[in-house]
Amino acid sequence: MNQTKRPYQTLSSHYLWQSQWYNLRQDQLRATDGAELTYTVIEKPRAVWIVPITNEGELVLIDQYRYAVDAWCLEVPAGNVEPGHTPEQQAAQELHEEIGGQAGQVVPVGEFYTMNGICDEVALVFLAVGVTLGEAQREPTEHITLRLVMVDEGLDMARSGQIKDGPSALAIVLSEPAIRRYLKEQQA
Amino acid sequence: MNQTKRPYQTLSSHYLWQSQWYNLRQDQLRATDGAELTYTVIEKPRAVWIVPITNEGELVLIDQYRYAVDAWCLEVPAGNVEPGHTPEQQAAQELHEEIGGQAGQVVPVGEFYTMNGICDEVALVFLAVGVTLGEAQREPTEHITLRLVMVDEGLDMARSGQIKDGPSALAIVLSEPAIRRYLKEQQA
Repeated sequence: MNQTKRPYQTLSSHYLWQSQWYNLRQDQLRATDGAELTYTVIEKPRAVWIVPITNEGELVLIDQYRYAVDAWCLEVPAGNVEPGHTPEQQAAQELHEEIGGQAGQVVPVGEFYTMNGICDEVALVFLAVGVTLGEAQREPTEHITLRLVMVDEGLDMARSGQIKDGPSALAIVLSEPAIRRYLKEQQA
Repeated sequence: MNQTKRPYQTLSSHYLWQSQWYNLRQDQLRATDGAELTYTVIEKPRAVWIVPITNEGELVLIDQYRYAVDAWCLEVPAGNVEPGHTPEQQAAQELHEEIGGQAGQVVPVGEFYTMNGICDEVALVFLAVGVTLGEAQREPTEHITLRLVMVDEGLDMARSGQIKDGPSALAIVLSEPAIRRYLKEQQA
């Protein structure tokens, strides 16, 4: 089977709704067997998730109220990549805005799709090391408190379902090898 | 700080768009400081992700074309919980439909939010053990091939970013303790 082949041809495309956050796009498709179908895609910019580690070997989590799920969630800083920004610049900006953080270094560790059945979002994961904390500059809709845990505890929390924000939990898991390398270098 | 307190009061709510898959709901909110704001929520049923393990200690992955991201993605079976179904029933149904699978046992291992900034979806993770494979009964929009890997390889793939579907990768990671227990019991 040739898996590079797209099973659909896009016949037409129009927007049902547009906003600064995301758009709802509806496409008319033709499948390889000739059948036509409608598919709706949430069109969203790429976003960055940043796993912040201090020089003391702590993971910086944020406890954030999320209106969509009406719950406080443990997360790592994250945000959409704004036009004109590289993902690295956006990562540094989110770190600054959400936790008042400055990183010694920001390194890419991987990427994934957050909801590939309905949305085109790509999550770009960064590890920020040597993070120092300062005054956060949050948006009015961001209700956040900081929670610092040792790296091993944070990894356990991510792997055991205690971090209910899926993309944050996966971002932490994906960062583990890079975190271990950093902590080892720091000790050397 | 009282984190059980909701920082917003919902003043009004209306639908921008509705479909069989999800709705787009726009709410008018009042923050605790009196400011009013608009928040749009993608309202979606809960969904199940099922991590299928055979008696031979293999993880059953599916390689699925995802139109929203125009890519083939390695995943585990998943689907919305349909009205009148329990999550366990839905898990068994998805297993049957997507991989023709029958499970010896289906056990809940955890849950997470897939995209809590914009969507209310809750992902419910199940481990299906003793899975046997048969004839799949896929929907016309499901383009899928199976890929079986040994459990350790599958866990490595999930932890190292080779499984690009975020919820599937996290579902596998969250299932690890339950998988280890099952494999140990099986050997005993």
